[in-house]
Amino acid sequence: MTTVTNSEIRIDVSRCLAKTVGADHGIAPEELKAIAPRVRDAHASLRKQRAKKVYGFYDLYKNDTVFKDIKKRAAKFLDKGIENVVVLGIGGSALGTTALLTALKPPYYNLLSREERHGAPRLFVMDNIDPVTFQSMMRICPPEKTLFNVISKSGDTAETVTQLLIVIDALKKRLGAARLKDHLVATTNPVGAPKASLLRPVAELYGLDIFEVPLNVGGRFSVFSPVGMFPAAMLGMNLDALRAGCEAMDKRCGVADVKSNPAYLRAAIHYLANTKKGKCMAVMMPYSDALRDVADWYRQMWAESLGKRMSLDGKEVFVGQTPIKSLGATDQHSQVQLYREGPNDKLLTLIEVGAFDVTLKIPRVPDVLKAVPQFAYLNGHSMNSLMAAELLGTMNALKLSTRPVILITLPKITSSTVAQLMYMLEVETAMAGRLYNVNAFDQPGVEDGKNIARALLAEK
Amino acid sequence: MTTVTNSEIRIDVSRCLAKTVGADHGIAPEELKAIAPRVRDAHASLRKQRAKKVYGFYDLYKNDTVFKDIKKRAAKFLDKGIENVVVLGIGGSALGTTALLTALKPPYYNLLSREERHGAPRLFVMDNIDPVTFQSMMRICPPEKTLFNVISKSGDTAETVTQLLIVIDALKKRLGAARLKDHLVATTNPVGAPKASLLRPVAELYGLDIFEVPLNVGGRFSVFSPVGMFPAAMLGMNLDALRAGCEAMDKRCGVADVKSNPAYLRAAIHYLANTKKGKCMAVMMPYSDALRDVADWYRQMWAESLGKRMSLDGKEVFVGQTPIKSLGATDQHSQVQLYREGPNDKLLTLIEVGAFDVTLKIPRVPDVLKAVPQFAYLNGHSMNSLMAAELLGTMNALKLSTRPVILITLPKITSSTVAQLMYMLEVETAMAGRLYNVNAFDQPGVEDGKNIARALLAEK
Repeated sequence: MTTVTNSEIRIDVSRCLAKTVGADHGIAPEELKAIAPRVRDAHASLRKQRAKKVYGFYDLYKNDTVFKDIKKRAAKFLDKGIENVVVLGIGGSALGTTALLTALKPPYYNLLSREERHGAPRLFVMDNIDPVTFQSMMRICPPEKTLFNVISKSGDTAETVTQLLIVIDALKKRLGAARLKDHLVATTNPVGAPKASLLRPVAELYGLDIFEVPLNVGGRFSVFSPVGMFPAAMLGMNLDALRAGCEAMDKRCGVADVKSNPAYLRAAIHYLANTKKGKCMAVMMPYSDALRDVADWYRQMWAESLGKRMSLDGKEVFVGQTPIKSLGATDQHSQVQLYREGPNDKLLTLIEVGAFDVTLKIPRVPDVLKAVPQFAYLNGHSMNSLMAAELLGTMNALKLSTRPVILITLPKITSSTVAQLMYMLEVETAMAGRLYNVNAFDQPGVEDGKNIARALLAEK
Repeated sequence: MTTVTNSEIRIDVSRCLAKTVGADHGIAPEELKAIAPRVRDAHASLRKQRAKKVYGFYDLYKNDTVFKDIKKRAAKFLDKGIENVVVLGIGGSALGTTALLTALKPPYYNLLSREERHGAPRLFVMDNIDPVTFQSMMRICPPEKTLFNVISKSGDTAETVTQLLIVIDALKKRLGAARLKDHLVATTNPVGAPKASLLRPVAELYGLDIFEVPLNVGGRFSVFSPVGMFPAAMLGMNLDALRAGCEAMDKRCGVADVKSNPAYLRAAIHYLANTKKGKCMAVMMPYSDALRDVADWYRQMWAESLGKRMSLDGKEVFVGQTPIKSLGATDQHSQVQLYREGPNDKLLTLIEVGAFDVTLKIPRVPDVLKAVPQFAYLNGHSMNSLMAAELLGTMNALKLSTRPVILITLPKITSSTVAQLMYMLEVETAMAGRLYNVNAFDQPGVEDGKNIARALLAEK
C-alpha cells in the first residue's frame, strides 16, 4: 500500500486474509493475484468511460463553476433569514445529505439554538411518505422561515411529487404564489435529458431556482453534485474541504494495482469473499455515532448497484451481497452474538475514529469506588479509550471466531476524511460492478413495483 | 386462523407459501404439517417453564404491584419538574424504550414544546459511548431539570458504568450528593441474584430509587418490565393499554397449533425458510416511520437469541438467521432492487398500518396540473393511499420475483397494537429457539470481546 498522510483514511485488510482467519473464510494471496488482471482491465475500461464522460460521478468535485454557483445561491437564501432547510426526496436524493449532516454537524443538531448552530438553519430530510411525520414537519417548519429543496432527477418520483404538491399548496395559501421562489428550489435533470424532467415546468411556472444533476450521474452517486452540496452549503459546511477529500481519494484511486488502490482492494475482497467464501452479507459497523448514516448511504450504493438479476452478457445471475448497517459499540449488545456464533456468512467492515473531537475523562468518584472497587479498572480512562478498547476487543473476538474483518481508520472526522470515505466507496462500487459483471448504474428491479403502485392509484 | 377483532393485529402468510412463490422458496402445507408436532411439544415445554417461572417475560404484564409502583414513582418525579429523561443503558436496556418512543410519541418529539408534549419530558436514550454525543446530551439536558435512569441488570456493563460515573460526577458538582436521588434512579437485578448487581451499592450510597428487573427476564425480553415501563410512564404513555395489548396477544399465543398461533406460525415459517429454503436473512420492513425502531428492537431479539454456535445437545451448529431492519416506502429506493433481483435468500416481513392518525390529502394545484398533466394520477388521493399503493406494489413485485413475504397489519398504531406486535415477536423468538434447538436466552458469544476490552483497559 502507498504511504498515506496523517489526514488520510487508512484501510487495513490483514484481518480478512487467509493467514488470519483461515482459507475457508479469508482471502489467499494467490486469489488476490489471480484477480489482479481483471481489476487492471476494469480500471482501464472505467478510466476510458470516465474520460468519455459516461460516468460523471468521478469528476463532480472538480466543477468550480457548479460549486461557486451553489455557494452564491446558498448565501442568497441565508440572507433572507431561512431557519429550516427541508429536503423533499427519497433514496439517492436524501441519503447523502443525511450522511453528511450526521457526520459533520453536532449531535442533536436540530435541538441546538441558532447560536450553537453558528447561525445555520436546521435540516429536515423527508425521505418517506408517512403522513404523520410529514404533518409534524410542516408544523415545526413555518413556511416563511423555511426553504424546501425538492430533489428528483426525473421529476417523476411519486413520493416526492406528492410531498411537493402538499408543500406548494401550503406555500401558496400562506405566502402567495409570488413568494414561492423564496421558499422552494428544485434539483433535477438538465434540459436535454432523454426524458424531460417533470420538475422543470413546475420550477418555471413559479420562477424557482433550479440546480442540475448531470445526466451522467445516477441518484446514488450524486452526493457531490448539487443534490448533496446545496443542502450542505445551506448548513454552512466546508465544501472546499469536501472537495479536497474527494481529490485526495481520487488520486489514491488512480492506480490500477489491486493491492495499492484502496477502493479496488475492498472491491476485490468483497467480491472474492462473496463468490468464493460464502460471505453473502457485508456489514459496515462504524464505532462512531457520526458515521452511522454513512453506513446507511453505503447500504443503498452497494445493494442497488450490485443486486442484479442479469449480467452484462445477458445471463440470469441473481447476484449481489446484502449490505448491513450496524453501529459500534451499541450493536455489540445486539448483533455481535450472531456475528461471532452464527453462520460465518459475513464480511465485516469496522470503522475506527483515531481521535474524537471531544475527550470525556471517566471521573474518579471516591465514594463510588469505595462502595464498588470492581469499577477500578476504569480509573484514569476516558470514554474515548473505552470505545477504542471495545473496538479492539470485538475485532479480536471476531478473529478468534475466524470472521473476516476490514478495518477503516479515519484519523479524525473531518469534511475531508468523510469525503475520502464516501468517494472511496463510490469508486469501490463501480469496480465491484465490473467484477460481478453487472451494470452498477441501473436499477431495473424497482420499476415493476412503481408501475403496480401507479396503476393502483390510477384505477381508483 | 382464529378470528381477530378490529383492534387486533393480523398476520397473513399467504405470500410465503409454496403455492404463491413456488416450492423452492415457499413453505408447503406438508412442511408445516410435519413441524406441527415439534411446535406442539415445544409449546408444552415452554408452558411448563413459564409455570415454573423459568421464563419470566411472559407474565411481566400481569404484575399489578410493579405497574402501580412504577406509576407512583413516575408521578413523584414528574411533580418535581423533570423536563428530560435520559436512559443510560445499552442493548436490551435501551432498544425497547426507543421502540416505544418512536412508535407512540409524535415524530420529532424532542423538538416539540412542552405543551405539544402534553407536559411530558423529553427522552434521550444513550445507548453508545461516543464522547461527542454524550457531551452534547449533557449540554442539552441541565442536571437540575433531568432524571437519569441507569439500567443494567448486572451493574457491570462497562459502557453503562462509564456513563454513570460521568453523570454522578456532574450531578455532585452541580447539585451536591444529597440531591442525587432526585435526578438519578437505577434499574437492576434484585437482591439475591447469583451475582450481586454492582449498581445496587451505588444506589444505596446515594439513597436512589431502585427498580428491579426480575432474574428470570433477560435484557432483550425486558421491555415490559421497569426497564421499558418506567421511562414509558415518565413520558405519560398508557401503561394499561400496553398491558392490554400483551394480554390480548398472550391469549392468541396460548394455543399449541402452529396454524392458529400467530407467533408459532411465524417462528415455524422463519425456521423452515432458513433451514429448508436458504433464507439466511429475515427482513422486517414496516411501512410506517413510527415502527422503524420496533424493527431495530426485533433485530436484537432475533440475532442474539438464535445466533448460536452450540445446540442444546452440545453440538457445534453455528445457526441463526440475520435480521435486517428496513423501512417502507423509503427503502424501495435503496434495498428493493436487491430484494427483488439479488439472490433469493431473504424472508421478508412487511408491516402495514391500516389507518394512520393523520390523513394528508394530495391537493389539486390547478396551475401545476396544467403545466404537468402527468401528475393527474395523484388527483383525489392522499399521502396515505400512496403509502398503501406503494406497499401493495412492492408486495406484488416481490411475488413476481418469487420472494416470500409475510404481511403483518396493525389496524392502527396504538399502545395496544404495538404491545401485541412486540409480545408476539417475543413469543415467536422463544419458540424459534426450540425449533433451532438452541438456548434463546443466553449470549455466550459476547463475553470474549468484553473480556478482551476489559483486559486492554486494565493493562494500561
